[in-house]
Amino acid sequence: MKNKNTKPASSVNALWGGRFTQGPAEAMARINASIDFDRRLWAQDIAGSKAHAAMLAAAGIISAKDCQEIADGLDRVAEEIASGDFPFRAEFEDIHMNVEARLAELIGEAAGRLHTARSRNDQVATDFRLFVRDAIDELDAGLVTFQRVLVDKADEHAETVMPGFTHLQTAQPVTFGHHLMAYYEMAKRDRGRLDDCRRRLNECPLGAAALAGTSFPIDREATADALGFDAPAANSLDAVSDRDFALEFLAALAIAQTHLSRLAEELVVFSSAPFGFVRLSDAFTTGSSIMPQKRNPDGAELVRAKTGGIAGAFQALLVVMKGLPLAYSKDMQEDKVPVFRATDAFAASLAVMTGMIADLTVDAEAMAAAAGGGHATATDLADWLVRALGLPFRTAHEVTGRIVALADGKGCALADLTQEDMQAVEPRIAEGVFDVLSVASSVASRTSFGGTAPERVREAIALAREELG
Amino acid sequence: MKNKNTKPASSVNALWGGRFTQGPAEAMARINASIDFDRRLWAQDIAGSKAHAAMLAAAGIISAKDCQEIADGLDRVAEEIASGDFPFRAEFEDIHMNVEARLAELIGEAAGRLHTARSRNDQVATDFRLFVRDAIDELDAGLVTFQRVLVDKADEHAETVMPGFTHLQTAQPVTFGHHLMAYYEMAKRDRGRLDDCRRRLNECPLGAAALAGTSFPIDREATADALGFDAPAANSLDAVSDRDFALEFLAALAIAQTHLSRLAEELVVFSSAPFGFVRLSDAFTTGSSIMPQKRNPDGAELVRAKTGGIAGAFQALLVVMKGLPLAYSKDMQEDKVPVFRATDAFAASLAVMTGMIADLTVDAEAMAAAAGGGHATATDLADWLVRALGLPFRTAHEVTGRIVALADGKGCALADLTQEDMQAVEPRIAEGVFDVLSVASSVASRTSFGGTAPERVREAIALAREELG
Amino acid sequence: MKNKNTKPASSVNALWGGRFTQGPAEAMARINASIDFDRRLWAQDIAGSKAHAAMLAAAGIISAKDCQEIADGLDRVAEEIASGDFPFRAEFEDIHMNVEARLAELIGEAAGRLHTARSRNDQVATDFRLFVRDAIDELDAGLVTFQRVLVDKADEHAETVMPGFTHLQTAQPVTFGHHLMAYYEMAKRDRGRLDDCRRRLNECPLGAAALAGTSFPIDREATADALGFDAPAANSLDAVSDRDFALEFLAALAIAQTHLSRLAEELVVFSSAPFGFVRLSDAFTTGSSIMPQKRNPDGAELVRAKTGGIAGAFQALLVVMKGLPLAYSKDMQEDKVPVFRATDAFAASLAVMTGMIADLTVDAEAMAAAAGGGHATATDLADWLVRALGLPFRTAHEVTGRIVALADGKGCALADLTQEDMQAVEPRIAEGVFDVLSVASSVASRTSFGGTAPERVREAIALAREELG
Amino acid sequence: MKNKNTKPASSVNALWGGRFTQGPAEAMARINASIDFDRRLWAQDIAGSKAHAAMLAAAGIISAKDCQEIADGLDRVAEEIASGDFPFRAEFEDIHMNVEARLAELIGEAAGRLHTARSRNDQVATDFRLFVRDAIDELDAGLVTFQRVLVDKADEHAETVMPGFTHLQTAQPVTFGHHLMAYYEMAKRDRGRLDDCRRRLNECPLGAAALAGTSFPIDREATADALGFDAPAANSLDAVSDRDFALEFLAALAIAQTHLSRLAEELVVFSSAPFGFVRLSDAFTTGSSIMPQKRNPDGAELVRAKTGGIAGAFQALLVVMKGLPLAYSKDMQEDKVPVFRATDAFAASLAVMTGMIADLTVDAEAMAAAAGGGHATATDLADWLVRALGLPFRTAHEVTGRIVALADGKGCALADLTQEDMQAVEPRIAEGVFDVLSVASSVASRTSFGGTAPERVREAIALAREELG
Repeated sequence: MKNKNTKPASSVNALWGGRFTQGPAEAMARINASIDFDRRLWAQDIAGSKAHAAMLAAAGIISAKDCQEIADGLDRVAEEIASGDFPFRAEFEDIHMNVEARLAELIGEAAGRLHTARSRNDQVATDFRLFVRDAIDELDAGLVTFQRVLVDKADEHAETVMPGFTHLQTAQPVTFGHHLMAYYEMAKRDRGRLDDCRRRLNECPLGAAALAGTSFPIDREATADALGFDAPAANSLDAVSDRDFALEFLAALAIAQTHLSRLAEELVVFSSAPFGFVRLSDAFTTGSSIMPQKRNPDGAELVRAKTGGIAGAFQALLVVMKGLPLAYSKDMQEDKVPVFRATDAFAASLAVMTGMIADLTVDAEAMAAAAGGGHATATDLADWLVRALGLPFRTAHEVTGRIVALADGKGCALADLTQEDMQAVEPRIAEGVFDVLSVASSVASRTSFGGTAPERVREAIALAREELG
Repeated sequence: MKNKNTKPASSVNALWGGRFTQGPAEAMARINASIDFDRRLWAQDIAGSKAHAAMLAAAGIISAKDCQEIADGLDRVAEEIASGDFPFRAEFEDIHMNVEARLAELIGEAAGRLHTARSRNDQVATDFRLFVRDAIDELDAGLVTFQRVLVDKADEHAETVMPGFTHLQTAQPVTFGHHLMAYYEMAKRDRGRLDDCRRRLNECPLGAAALAGTSFPIDREATADALGFDAPAANSLDAVSDRDFALEFLAALAIAQTHLSRLAEELVVFSSAPFGFVRLSDAFTTGSSIMPQKRNPDGAELVRAKTGGIAGAFQALLVVMKGLPLAYSKDMQEDKVPVFRATDAFAASLAVMTGMIADLTVDAEAMAAAAGGGHATATDLADWLVRALGLPFRTAHEVTGRIVALADGKGCALADLTQEDMQAVEPRIAEGVFDVLSVASSVASRTSFGGTAPERVREAIALAREELG
Repeated sequence: MKNKNTKPASSVNALWGGRFTQGPAEAMARINASIDFDRRLWAQDIAGSKAHAAMLAAAGIISAKDCQEIADGLDRVAEEIASGDFPFRAEFEDIHMNVEARLAELIGEAAGRLHTARSRNDQVATDFRLFVRDAIDELDAGLVTFQRVLVDKADEHAETVMPGFTHLQTAQPVTFGHHLMAYYEMAKRDRGRLDDCRRRLNECPLGAAALAGTSFPIDREATADALGFDAPAANSLDAVSDRDFALEFLAALAIAQTHLSRLAEELVVFSSAPFGFVRLSDAFTTGSSIMPQKRNPDGAELVRAKTGGIAGAFQALLVVMKGLPLAYSKDMQEDKVPVFRATDAFAASLAVMTGMIADLTVDAEAMAAAAGGGHATATDLADWLVRALGLPFRTAHEVTGRIVALADGKGCALADLTQEDMQAVEPRIAEGVFDVLSVASSVASRTSFGGTAPERVREAIALAREELG
Repeated sequence: MKNKNTKPASSVNALWGGRFTQGPAEAMARINASIDFDRRLWAQDIAGSKAHAAMLAAAGIISAKDCQEIADGLDRVAEEIASGDFPFRAEFEDIHMNVEARLAELIGEAAGRLHTARSRNDQVATDFRLFVRDAIDELDAGLVTFQRVLVDKADEHAETVMPGFTHLQTAQPVTFGHHLMAYYEMAKRDRGRLDDCRRRLNECPLGAAALAGTSFPIDREATADALGFDAPAANSLDAVSDRDFALEFLAALAIAQTHLSRLAEELVVFSSAPFGFVRLSDAFTTGSSIMPQKRNPDGAELVRAKTGGIAGAFQALLVVMKGLPLAYSKDMQEDKVPVFRATDAFAASLAVMTGMIADLTVDAEAMAAAAGGGHATATDLADWLVRALGLPFRTAHEVTGRIVALADGKGCALADLTQEDMQAVEPRIAEGVFDVLSVASSVASRTSFGGTAPERVREAIALAREELG
């Protein structure tokens, strides 16, 4: 049984098909062509080709005239693509061959000299690094905007008291500004990860050729410089066959998105009716087709959900790379879609989260009321017992537990107990204890570095503004 | 700081936006709209709506005339979509609202009665189950074709000897037919998993409405029947909020693709120059832009690689669903892309693998030569020592080890040792031992059920043909 | 540079090391030995060996006397292991060789005949299938208990009204019993997945030997029967080299755990102070070392979190299997830890969730109060407009939206508007409308099959009790 | 139905259980206790406590005498644990409470003062960062050793010719030294990732207390300094609730292990009989229980397989963290096992890979023979046509393709064609062409930076030795 479903020989790919007598099967053509997605690399591909051609000319490998024709031709290709007029053709498989084939139509023989001393292997490795580098620059700018919005909103709420939760149970009062600044710190580390990834990937594969380097007297420093790389990659086999930079990028995005997912979860919970801490703007909520009263936090939910796709993208590429022998294998064509999709998912999430935080309004009363519940100042009482009475903390903790049980029994808050009530548990308790039982004093007292006292929060905000420039 | 980048109020979605005074932000509009991908559900959406309308009319909830107008209108919508003339509009967010909005343009007021006693929540759950069911049916047909090709090729090679590997080291001779039939068995279980998934998902969510059911006197059996479901889903909250059927489908595909990845790896290794066991057809190999002599197994490599995307899709959806409270949350909109992509990746891989196996040619001589190397019949020698001399297997194993070492020392094969050589290790070894040392006799002797003896392989092939009908 | 860190030759493994002149490096010994974890398969290993020996004797391959000695010896090994006296030794690498080596110490030469016509490859494949089968049986029993607890608690709360959420926003009132029964349905499908997995894996690899079958006249039906398998596996290569049954098991657990994670999330949110819907028992909450008043839902949080480990286990094994050529490769030794860990994680989660639900107490007043907020009966109003006034649903939806806005403006509930208020929006609104605006009537009206009306919930409970037997 | 299976009240945890009247259920106790795994943090926990106590004394919060008693007591605890005499108790749940409870037994009341101004939340965050930091230091040392072994082996084989593969098809000749140096580069980036992770995590959570900071006048700089941190963490909520450092660590290990898996795959394939390029030492291979002649590359296979567990560990922790509201939730207890397991898996893999490469012997003849096959110098011919005849590369590529086809037709190598043969395709081909068709000249000609020419490889080796110091 022979596979019938093949293209006629005439459609055999003109750039590599010389010795094939039969075109690829339809199924093969479909799985093999990457032009539907790798066209997104067009700008990087053209920039790389221009740098390569200029180097070839400078090294005397091609003539200055050919180089000029190539450069002009590539500019015309770029214009065609930018304007939507470029004839993308699946039979040329990928962006590299589409560009080169079109270049040949536009400028003729000189186009055939462009691929001297290179291969699609180093070409795509270069294009893809440039893409990831560009993506990092864009996303870093997005993260900066997100940080600015966090800082502004934190400033607005540096003294707005809310319950700090552990286990989603009221733990100790904090300020909403302090809470938001936690996300500022996370975003700072997220930016650091992207920045480290950028630095590490910024070595140029061009000149590694297929895998072994080339015998042409090329100047790899020159192409690296022209494309903004820090240096040429040091080993030609490694340069064309690793995608660790893409994995590192995806891991950084997955981690960053996990941060966004936590804030998103909080927006969903905090905007639920029983919490009622925050209200999302109309711009970031939607209605229901059947329940007209709904204001659904779809934006937050989608941000939370997109964690899945990015985590999946990292796993997808890791599975692709696992156990691949050197150097290039076609498996590696599956590197791009995960990166493109994760980039888009993170960018979209970041934009929506930035908008949601910017637009967010807070019900400070609801927050304050909740912060006062649940004996949230019990720790303050225990600390007072340590400070004022010299109790070991563990003893103070037990005493506090008994006083909390007393308040629970009476159905009142700690601050509503009388001094006598407390003295029944620990006779030395003095009037001064009431100074620490209010939410406001609790928050104000947490003045340790990094603590939630408004003065500390304002210092953190000032420092953040300095960092953001 | 207010988010400026919002649409004018006039573009507020007409179907649910009544009380919103501000349109969604651009970023929100982008992240929120699903029409770019869920349009793929159009046929299922229209089928579901027709069944729903017919039931509403039969139950007296809408008039027969309205029902007819709706049905005719939906047919026109279907035609428009099929012919590419349908005006998909991002402002209507998803396929459901696009279809309904267009229906309203086509038939006017009656369209407004279609959404009685349903919600987008039960609608999309129904559409998506129908899609997965259709996908399973298609992929099962693809698996059957793959199985047929395996069986045919196995039949051709029921006696073709190759080295059976463990750890990619020559272990014992097997036939290539037997090897291929291992994949037949895997595909059989893969089909079983899809079939179980299909059976389990085949309950109809329609009528669960938003989450609680409805007060209209609907007939859920009727819509379930009309759409080929086995029954209506038993709990309205569960019906609209679970996506376990999609997870199960993705897991089944991930496992099946892992099977394909193993065969793909073998094709890559077996078609390498040092092995040279098989030759892939031109239809499923490609050339190199710089190394004209290459015949690259790109098809096999892409099949192997696509395991990543499918595994990632399962993980993606699982992350989405983890920790979501009931009932519908917008997070669940992220269920479709993983399913669509995995379906396409598996279908493409299956088609390519089927074509590669159908076209595959075998170098039987190379296989036979390799099968004879590595003392592949050492186990046969050990078994002979047990059978003929009554040695305990462990003793036979040690004796065999010493004879193998002897052959290694002489640089010859086991069968090339003399009887005297062997008797130096175990004096009772008789001439009959040479009957078991050839590759052919080794293969022929493995007649246990499921073994590699050609007669067993042919029985397995016959049984498979019966199963395939 | 030679690796120095090797064991002396005397420690070379006695069962296979005949031709090795140097022991494995320490690092290799550590990575290679599996006895630390695969000892957990001891009962399955011994059962398999006993069945194998009995078959060998019945087929005349070993003597009845040897068989009896082997069986008795294996019983003694089993006793030693059960009582904790068994000398597990890392130099025998795995459970199979530990058992066989101990057997040889106990009974001498006959032990050497046990390994006739088998290999560790078919042995471990058999042991591992038996383990997964046993695990499924245990977990299914756990799921049944969980289902019983859900049904009992649902019965208790078949009329307890709570807000049904979408997007964690109040959507429509439902009963808590109905909500719990959604999880009954999920558990039912989870059991179905495990059951399908059990059925599919229940084919016996014994007799596949290393990979090719054997020349001994074994009876594979006999060993399959003795071990409770439905049949011997049909292809010897497939039998020893696939682990799809373990992947399927892990996928089923991952999906089931995702269900538990959703209920766990709800317990965390519903037991938070602002919600206050439920109270977890002391048995399943913990305190804080510094905040004495806390009652933390640690049990629910750990159930939610364990989703990660199980999802990771599936991914781990899938990565292991991806691209492995047939037949056995040592990579497959990494199959057990993910399965053991996922089994334990799911069993622990199930036990804790079952206990939490059994002990759960409900604050019906808090639930009812929340159910009445958020204009939760807006859909009922819209439906009334359709039914009573014949409005198309879309028109009714818009009218309802305007009435909701009116109530919002007045800061009152829908039911607190006057008829005149409503008539200002839609003059035909009659008094009867107030019959549908209460939470109780809303719930009672959802009588469609699978709906939240108490009578439907009670039917579902009755049916569930029948299913559970 | 009440959960019966509870411990008597007397076993209620003494450190936080004051107000609980019922002990945790057995199932809860099992899922909740972490002492079975977090005991591994004991050294870090004690170091953290000593630093904390010293700071408390310096700040006047506890007395110098108490501080001394605490320090001495902690030293005794450390000795007990190191010597195996420490009584780990499940009822104290975790390492923190086990240490503190034992301290109380040893020194009495002063022990109760240690927990002043801290919480388990900042304590565990500190311990865990210290653990990851220590792990990084150890693994970095392991990577350096691996790099040294690679460089030594590369030096030995700087001129050993092998086929460079793409798609596992012979592409162009390279040297084995060049090939190994590709892995040197990967390991360098792997070290860079770990180093960046170390730098980023090196901020001290101590003093964040439960989540809000503390009112005690603590000196966070002092504890940070004492423990080798660069600074105290800037936001108390962030400090106790993020685990991004663990995710980053796991991602770095997953990527590094993917590199090892590729080398492992090559060892498996290259040591197969048909390739026969390399021979692994006895120290890193094992035998078979039934096939005495086998030398199985189990070490390489296990390294390859362990990629699964590490990838799964990253996914596991990411799933845990997704969507968790701030601050600490018990879910985060599930952070440790993935990190411990991944650390061990990577350390074991690195040790084995280092040993395998150190011991590796090469069959240079087999490599050279394979390098000469497959028209591996076709690119050299194409490049010659460009250089000598001035053909555009694309034309040269086509001409080469026709000459390769000619050689294929004659069943000979390119170098075995006559000048006349070649001139039939391109008349201008001159004798000089034969200078580039040998494998040796091909390798020698690839002198571009990073290329495979031995002189370049030796330069890379020299540079690497400098980097390694």
